[in-house]
Amino acid sequence: MSPRKIIFDTDPGIDDAMAILFAHLHPDLDLVGITTVLGNGSIDTTTRNALYIRDRFAIDTPVLRGAASALLVPDEEPPTFVHGDDGLGNVKIDHTDSDPAPGSAAQFIVDTVMASPGEVSIVAVGRLTNLAIALDIEPRIADAVAEVIVMGGALGSNEYTGNVTPVAEANIYGDPHAADMVFTAAWPTVLVGLDVTMTCVMRRPQMQRIRGQSGDAGEFLWDITRFYENYYRERRGVLGFPVHDSCAVIYAVAPELFGTVTGALRVVAEGISRGQTILVPAERTFPPSAWDDQPHSIGCIGVDSDGVLALYEDILRRGA
Amino acid sequence: MSPRKIIFDTDPGIDDAMAILFAHLHPDLDLVGITTVLGNGSIDTTTRNALYIRDRFAIDTPVLRGAASALLVPDEEPPTFVHGDDGLGNVKIDHTDSDPAPGSAAQFIVDTVMASPGEVSIVAVGRLTNLAIALDIEPRIADAVAEVIVMGGALGSNEYTGNVTPVAEANIYGDPHAADMVFTAAWPTVLVGLDVTMTCVMRRPQMQRIRGQSGDAGEFLWDITRFYENYYRERRGVLGFPVHDSCAVIYAVAPELFGTVTGALRVVAEGISRGQTILVPAERTFPPSAWDDQPHSIGCIGVDSDGVLALYEDILRRGA
Repeated sequence: MSPRKIIFDTDPGIDDAMAILFAHLHPDLDLVGITTVLGNGSIDTTTRNALYIRDRFAIDTPVLRGAASALLVPDEEPPTFVHGDDGLGNVKIDHTDSDPAPGSAAQFIVDTVMASPGEVSIVAVGRLTNLAIALDIEPRIADAVAEVIVMGGALGSNEYTGNVTPVAEANIYGDPHAADMVFTAAWPTVLVGLDVTMTCVMRRPQMQRIRGQSGDAGEFLWDITRFYENYYRERRGVLGFPVHDSCAVIYAVAPELFGTVTGALRVVAEGISRGQTILVPAERTFPPSAWDDQPHSIGCIGVDSDGVLALYEDILRRGA
Repeated sequence: MSPRKIIFDTDPGIDDAMAILFAHLHPDLDLVGITTVLGNGSIDTTTRNALYIRDRFAIDTPVLRGAASALLVPDEEPPTFVHGDDGLGNVKIDHTDSDPAPGSAAQFIVDTVMASPGEVSIVAVGRLTNLAIALDIEPRIADAVAEVIVMGGALGSNEYTGNVTPVAEANIYGDPHAADMVFTAAWPTVLVGLDVTMTCVMRRPQMQRIRGQSGDAGEFLWDITRFYENYYRERRGVLGFPVHDSCAVIYAVAPELFGTVTGALRVVAEGISRGQTILVPAERTFPPSAWDDQPHSIGCIGVDSDGVLALYEDILRRGA
């Protein structure tokens, strides 16, 4: 079986960087493009970081610059207290001479998906602005894409119901209109949200093993995750850090590690609960609502956390 | 101990009628007034029904006519498929010559609460329009009221997350702005929502016993609940019917039958999740949000259903 083509839409971001390396090193994945979006840093920062990672690890894939702001909501300051001023944990990032490939992230998504109908999946781990614009440019991508896997949101299956408000996760909150467009489009979508990512916590002993056994990738990941680990310990009381974005890539190769529910998924656009993701299970037919007659999404509400973390470590070790 | 004074704010309504009789017959409660609001019927219908019940059962308390429409949201047709065209299960209601007492429900609430500081509780089982208007007329009622117990909403602790949309209950959905005013005012509020009321289902054998042992009240309740029982069986697949509004009155006399959580409670005003009630537990201090620095409410998320139903039957039997 030939490797599965994926476009990785991302705002690196520390956990994004971890996920990029996993996607690059996994033998069953063919990373056909990296598209950037604002989020963990400005679009300049996230694009620079994507190019840096691509170049440092000789990843043979284009980087496309994407949306600099959300569709409708005003942009806020990037969460530098989580990802550092440089979006990569305030490590010393070497200079990179690379520029992104010409064209926009959204147009690249359209062209790539339409060129290989049924073959390209999108794994999106930042705001969904690029995907919404791509759908607007060419609605037929909904039929042509293989699968859209999103890290974002929370379905309320456990106590991890939000990280920027009590009911909203940052990627969805950051562009709720784009997110609702993505989940109400007629393409197969999967939500890998806080319900599962917050329980996939990489603790220091494992990160130390990865550092020791995964060469330059291991050193890089160790370096960038020091700031992130410190944030989770100091501000959230978590020992270790959740591998949020890697969970979405891992769903692409090992969906059996996740427990899911299926139904119409919509996003609250405005008001005190802006960015809340609400999935109405398919078997629920009462009462009538804005979820009726919408395409169904798959939502992750359970995960084999040990399996996810072991797979991450294993792929990084083999790739060294 | 003298009986506890309560104002019962209501939109009868079949389960409202059940609750009125319980409040009337319970020896520890002094029903100092019944205030009406639109909801299960128009304000004409719900006021007529309150007067009818008051007169038929010789309840020595005034009935005050309240809000005919919600504060901001447009009114919809009453749910005649649940409560009947007359709001009381399409039974033959005898003519009543009574008129409501002069003045508005909201002004009555203000005057009654301010006349006996710390002594009057409000049990509200319809839209919260009258309470919001009362707060607007005289904010000091927040300090003077003993307790405000609301039947409405849902906190997502189980599958009963909504009855007019998948995330909204009818009383809160019907006037979400009023509800948010009530729960963000600095008075002690308790939410008795679908989490608990949907599990307090009165089945036919118990209703038959009440019919046999509670005199005219038993006959009346049997008659009006035939339509309601049929609705739940035919449309909801429930054998029996939830005693929604009685749960709120029972909380007033037997709070030990309920499991609760405490925290800031707010209501979504608009959009696809209009009317959703979201309680952020007091112990949750992260992340910042519109719930910060708001008064805390008590939310019911567990109930001894058998205890609630047995208490209802017992009070009706003793009152006969």
